[in-house]
Amino acid sequence: MASGITGSDVKSLQVQHDTIEVQTRGKGTVEITGRVRDILKASGITEGVVTVFVRHTSCSLVIMENADPSARRDLHEFFDRLVPEDTPWFQHTSEGPDDMPSHLRMALTRTSESIPVSSSRMLLGTWQGIFLFEHRRAAHLREIVVTVMGG
Amino acid sequence: MASGITGSDVKSLQVQHDTIEVQTRGKGTVEITGRVRDILKASGITEGVVTVFVRHTSCSLVIMENADPSARRDLHEFFDRLVPEDTPWFQHTSEGPDDMPSHLRMALTRTSESIPVSSSRMLLGTWQGIFLFEHRRAAHLREIVVTVMGG
Amino acid sequence: MASGITGSDVKSLQVQHDTIEVQTRGKGTVEITGRVRDILKASGITEGVVTVFVRHTSCSLVIMENADPSARRDLHEFFDRLVPEDTPWFQHTSEGPDDMPSHLRMALTRTSESIPVSSSRMLLGTWQGIFLFEHRRAAHLREIVVTVMGG
Repeated sequence: MASGITGSDVKSLQVQHDTIEVQTRGKGTVEITGRVRDILKASGITEGVVTVFVRHTSCSLVIMENADPSARRDLHEFFDRLVPEDTPWFQHTSEGPDDMPSHLRMALTRTSESIPVSSSRMLLGTWQGIFLFEHRRAAHLREIVVTVMGG
Repeated sequence: MASGITGSDVKSLQVQHDTIEVQTRGKGTVEITGRVRDILKASGITEGVVTVFVRHTSCSLVIMENADPSARRDLHEFFDRLVPEDTPWFQHTSEGPDDMPSHLRMALTRTSESIPVSSSRMLLGTWQGIFLFEHRRAAHLREIVVTVMGG
Repeated sequence: MASGITGSDVKSLQVQHDTIEVQTRGKGTVEITGRVRDILKASGITEGVVTVFVRHTSCSLVIMENADPSARRDLHEFFDRLVPEDTPWFQHTSEGPDDMPSHLRMALTRTSESIPVSSSRMLLGTWQGIFLFEHRRAAHLREIVVTVMGG
């Protein structure tokens, strides 16, 4: 690869923020790759980094295989079993049995991801999709900040 | 949102590093949100990204709910149980029973986080706080590098 | 520390991407710190952030202790036990018993890391190494994008 902006080819900095609102339908993953791509395209930035940041502590991000839906079903079930909602010793349960498990499943996955941008495209691998991972049982409107920084 | 610096509004790049020293009191979480905010403010950078990076492999970062302390108590206990200190097959125990669990709890959480900055403010959600997650039993002085990059 | 580029000392933006190809020998960790350092050095960028991004969903990144190999052996075994290959309820098994465990071990660790750069050096801690974490049983050729952005 070894592409990029170097030497005499320097540019001025550009920073572009945008917010994706995602309406979830309760627990599960929602792909946002296309929406991040649209924001990158609109930014006009050709070389740099896209930062994806979820503004919540009861949902998270994961860059996951986007081909076979069974991979995501197993992902959901694994986290359901790793952090069970009927854990008897949880104290933080004021919002219900999915309250504390949501925070823990978030802590075990990601809040921010940084994805390289070259020639106006994210350098995702063939099978990589960017997903919001909703951990609450109820539907929620979630906010994800997408920041494109570069030149 | 759709704020940012674009088109004719480009700026020159600024990069500002600063180190936060955190004195921990053994296992648990210590909030550093205010100290990151102070570094951002001092940098004078209005649009960009803050990178928070912990320089250790036996403590980590987590962006966690900052309102109800019971959420953090459950977080601590969950990781104590997920990676028990009395795991009989651990080989890496030269620094005691909390040695290997510290590395594993670190690997399961985060070493770096990237947080968008717009209009001189981090775009954290209402309930999000940035925490150092100490995994060793003994008190430690920890170093976290905060980098503000933008314009 | 408090180093950096500020005030009248602003620079033009530089972005440099490069791809590291890592030949794995099946499950385990492969250190890439030296190769990231070489890319940083070649970029000529002195202040900024290095983003390391793995372009796969069945291997991941971890910044781990690089001194005692027993720490990494325990890391491997821990993830083998946390996500067992003989889990009976996995549906996503078309590529074998290590297929779904690979995705889950990836989701539990990291896809991207952001590391501060000051005075042409990554501000890694003394014991921190950057590792590719291969989760598949078979040898694979993996791609990691290293992006140096700064001035």
